[in-house]
Amino acid sequence: MVKYSKKDDTSFAPGITLAFYLLENRKEDIIRIYISPSLERKETYFKLVSLAKNSKIPLIENNAKIFKDIANKDNCMVIAEFKKRFNTLEKDAPHLVLVNPSNMGNLGTILRSCLAFNINNVALISPCADPYDPKTIRASMGSIFSINLTIFPSFEKYKKLYSNHHFYPFMLKAKNTLGNIKISNPYSIILGNEATGLDDSYLNEGEPVLIKISSKVDSLNLDNAASIALYEFAKSI
Amino acid sequence: MVKYSKKDDTSFAPGITLAFYLLENRKEDIIRIYISPSLERKETYFKLVSLAKNSKIPLIENNAKIFKDIANKDNCMVIAEFKKRFNTLEKDAPHLVLVNPSNMGNLGTILRSCLAFNINNVALISPCADPYDPKTIRASMGSIFSINLTIFPSFEKYKKLYSNHHFYPFMLKAKNTLGNIKISNPYSIILGNEATGLDDSYLNEGEPVLIKISSKVDSLNLDNAASIALYEFAKSI
Repeated sequence: MVKYSKKDDTSFAPGITLAFYLLENRKEDIIRIYISPSLERKETYFKLVSLAKNSKIPLIENNAKIFKDIANKDNCMVIAEFKKRFNTLEKDAPHLVLVNPSNMGNLGTILRSCLAFNINNVALISPCADPYDPKTIRASMGSIFSINLTIFPSFEKYKKLYSNHHFYPFMLKAKNTLGNIKISNPYSIILGNEATGLDDSYLNEGEPVLIKISSKVDSLNLDNAASIALYEFAKSI
Repeated sequence: MVKYSKKDDTSFAPGITLAFYLLENRKEDIIRIYISPSLERKETYFKLVSLAKNSKIPLIENNAKIFKDIANKDNCMVIAEFKKRFNTLEKDAPHLVLVNPSNMGNLGTILRSCLAFNINNVALISPCADPYDPKTIRASMGSIFSINLTIFPSFEKYKKLYSNHHFYPFMLKAKNTLGNIKISNPYSIILGNEATGLDDSYLNEGEPVLIKISSKVDSLNLDNAASIALYEFAKSI
């Protein structure tokens, strides 16, 4: 049985679109490509096979079970197995910092919003959802392959390396609201865990920011808050 | 077996927080409350029982199976069964219009963002995800109970009733970008289906709006796009 584990050096990108994306952008990272026996042997199939063969990537076409193991109930016909990659974040570029994000779907859609708003450097503070779990990859719609990603054991470690950054922690206790703050480059947008947010210690980091919302709700969903932050920062620069 | 169906007049709100929310805000809609035999008979339990008894709401405490049937694998100890309610939308208030949303999780978090940004009137254009499915209710974190909700068989029907509204369809083909448009009241923010967006006919409705994103991604996740739209419109008014 082929099973993905967080500890592995490789992971699986489910779906034909992601396979093409990897072939075009990171073919050196692809280990092999699984093609479901149920995929119709038509134009798309032949295009995929030809691209893979040109890059000498092994094709496995007789393993129907991996589609159950990895892609579960999704209607998935192609799975690309690839080497996970963690890249150093660029020092002078803006960052998104996620402290202890726990939901893989959220993490994936946040990476998609990052790329949408030109944030190509993301720090994850451990413990955190696995960015290379196939669920995260699918939710990111491939954006993860275009983003520099580093997991840090603590916020302190991140802070030490990127002391040139201006920190903007998003907190319900912040006094200044998004849209009314001066944004300095390079910036780090910092967001906390889905259930608990950032703890009070972050009130002392840079300039805390509040997204003003009605008292009728406790908070926004994490990926929605992140998307609003990314949108507003992108607009202001 | 207790099972929820879209056709039923009642639905189930999973989780103790939602039960308290209903008891405080819409107790006249509650049919009965199921309490898991596994819920500890402590302070929260006694508070719930007392509130329910004061309102003469029947309590079912010996049905462990419904928690499997309705809440699936979630760690849920209380389920409130309630009457579904669809309310007419307010004519002079701003609306969110979702055309054929298909994902219940997305729909739920969008309702949460609506309430966060003071949009209390939501139109759904059929076919659409079921707003009263327990999955949607959970993702909305109860926001659905504070929102006027109507399902319309077509956009034309909606348009006829709310011809006083200024329409802002969100489309990748729009020329004007969010943040650079004049917003007139009462407004209707209009968003399409997760996979297909709005079709070209909406280019002729009111003022189409674009959320400017990098060419590296095709689009934003629907609930992220909706949240950004709601945030920006709330700010501009």
